[in-house]
Amino acid sequence: MVVTDPIFVRACRREPVDRTPVWFMRQAGRYLEEYQDLRRRYSMLELCRTPELAAEVTLQPLRRFPLDAAIIFADILLPLPPMGVPFHFSPGEGPCIDTPVRSEEQIRRLRVFDPEKELDYVLEALRLVRRRLEPEIALIGFAGAPFTLAGYMIEGGHSRHFTATRRMMYETPRSWHYLMSVVAEVTSAYLAAQVQAGAQVVQLFDSWVGVLDPQDYVEFVQPYSQRVLDSLENLGILRIHFATGTAGMLEAFRDAGGDVIGVDWRIPLGEAWRRIGYDRAIQGNLDPVALTAPLPVLRKKVRWVLQQADGRPGHIFNLGHGILPTTPPENVAAVVEWVHDGCAGADERKR
Amino acid sequence: MVVTDPIFVRACRREPVDRTPVWFMRQAGRYLEEYQDLRRRYSMLELCRTPELAAEVTLQPLRRFPLDAAIIFADILLPLPPMGVPFHFSPGEGPCIDTPVRSEEQIRRLRVFDPEKELDYVLEALRLVRRRLEPEIALIGFAGAPFTLAGYMIEGGHSRHFTATRRMMYETPRSWHYLMSVVAEVTSAYLAAQVQAGAQVVQLFDSWVGVLDPQDYVEFVQPYSQRVLDSLENLGILRIHFATGTAGMLEAFRDAGGDVIGVDWRIPLGEAWRRIGYDRAIQGNLDPVALTAPLPVLRKKVRWVLQQADGRPGHIFNLGHGILPTTPPENVAAVVEWVHDGCAGADERKR
Repeated sequence: MVVTDPIFVRACRREPVDRTPVWFMRQAGRYLEEYQDLRRRYSMLELCRTPELAAEVTLQPLRRFPLDAAIIFADILLPLPPMGVPFHFSPGEGPCIDTPVRSEEQIRRLRVFDPEKELDYVLEALRLVRRRLEPEIALIGFAGAPFTLAGYMIEGGHSRHFTATRRMMYETPRSWHYLMSVVAEVTSAYLAAQVQAGAQVVQLFDSWVGVLDPQDYVEFVQPYSQRVLDSLENLGILRIHFATGTAGMLEAFRDAGGDVIGVDWRIPLGEAWRRIGYDRAIQGNLDPVALTAPLPVLRKKVRWVLQQADGRPGHIFNLGHGILPTTPPENVAAVVEWVHDGCAGADERKR
Repeated sequence: MVVTDPIFVRACRREPVDRTPVWFMRQAGRYLEEYQDLRRRYSMLELCRTPELAAEVTLQPLRRFPLDAAIIFADILLPLPPMGVPFHFSPGEGPCIDTPVRSEEQIRRLRVFDPEKELDYVLEALRLVRRRLEPEIALIGFAGAPFTLAGYMIEGGHSRHFTATRRMMYETPRSWHYLMSVVAEVTSAYLAAQVQAGAQVVQLFDSWVGVLDPQDYVEFVQPYSQRVLDSLENLGILRIHFATGTAGMLEAFRDAGGDVIGVDWRIPLGEAWRRIGYDRAIQGNLDPVALTAPLPVLRKKVRWVLQQADGRPGHIFNLGHGILPTTPPENVAAVVEWVHDGCAGADERKR
């Protein structure tokens, strides 16, 4: 018997496949009742740190929808405590870093750690999921990109303008560059370990980097994302590089690396792909709010994304950012079906 | 004596001028002590509704910095109460609409009003400022664009995803289109009245429209912004059309109209201008956070923006969004000086 890679993996390599693969950022999450049931019994961090529970949450959406990939349930901040930066979730506020990292002294104390030891629970969850998942479904590992992780460490939580982060870039650039090196090293090792544990593709989330001007991105961020992505490429690992708000700096973002570039909904996917270049695969880019719309509107939107991709090999259907908690699960089901059958109206697409 | 228009006005028309004109969105605001002094004695709405005070606040930054334009001090929500939609400011939360507008019935009750009667205090403030302002300084009037105003009316205040607004677009498009027609009519009349009262240029702020995908922008928003901008063009009024987050739909945004297109910092200004076309003037696009940076960093950033504009007639220097309250006034002074002397290092620029 010839074992072929999952459709999702082949699409990441831009091989022609029978149907467009589809998954959703935050597909395991609050819009699902079965997830909410678990969250009533366990905290976010308990779910992340108990491999059985993390595996269960990862698999929940796969039981409902014929998705092409599972993404391991974890939080992008999990590498912080082993670096020496503890955090907790405060209700309604999201993550809260106990002591934001702002001084040179704090930065010099950061630890580069062994993910096999200190994030073993994530790796164990990956192994459990891989064993339980049909072979034709891909498993995605992920991590926050250096800017996004450093931003949380410095701001202490969510931020609108990332002013403290920017202050460090501008006022103490050596501290900034050292911090980014450490985070890049940790992230590279963590993602490589996830692949060892069974992930077939990894996604680097630089969710908030779109707040920067393109010049700052190139000077302060790109080299570190590139360092992570290059180190994975050397190991032969398939990489999705995702951020939002990159329409004004797509080329620089692409230049940091990634086999697949993830784009948000605020640019037509066809235009984004043309600028990125057809030597990369592309992931996106339905508006998460559109996923909550009445089905006829939603269908028009899905068709538009598929038309924009023009049937070119290397399109992975996804949202432009995470699923909103108010999303009706039946809308998710409908989108998976439409994407798989080519939307039966995106007829103009070339195959 | 030959009376010439202010440099700022000539730059809006893309006439060659001796130096790049500069002003700052929210140049009258919380980063100035003299503004904070007034705010300790008067509420935001008292300042807006008392022509003497609004004129004073408008003129405060002009006393400190040799700016090329004053922008009338007002709030974009002032047209809401005369339409029948009262609001207040709640401390720390920003504007709060007493009863968000969500039903067909509420929308049908909206009033188109006469700005000469119901927003006379803004017009009187414009007249006071124009009398007190040096003739070489331009006076800018402004209003919120239909999407931004409708978004506040529907959401009831600031919003991250504009989900209620989007629900109306998708679920009751007729209500949406009617609401946008009413807001467009009110906005056109209000801006025309501001010009009658002494404004030489008007800016249409569509601050939050960058949350939309380009297809929704074209279907649900562009026709109404265009209606406002066209009505002003017919009166010979110079128009700045501004939004943030438009890098993925600049062409559609430009097509709605405007003599000057305002862009945010998340795209190189040169790239934005090339895409918009050199038959429009451009305004922008320093990152507001960069305006808080140490002077050597700030100077590099200012020089970059000037280099991107390449000395082409029709560049108005500004931020990519409003001044942050933490901005040191001496940084503002430095930027005005650098822009006026061509940054004495942006030597590569062609003139």
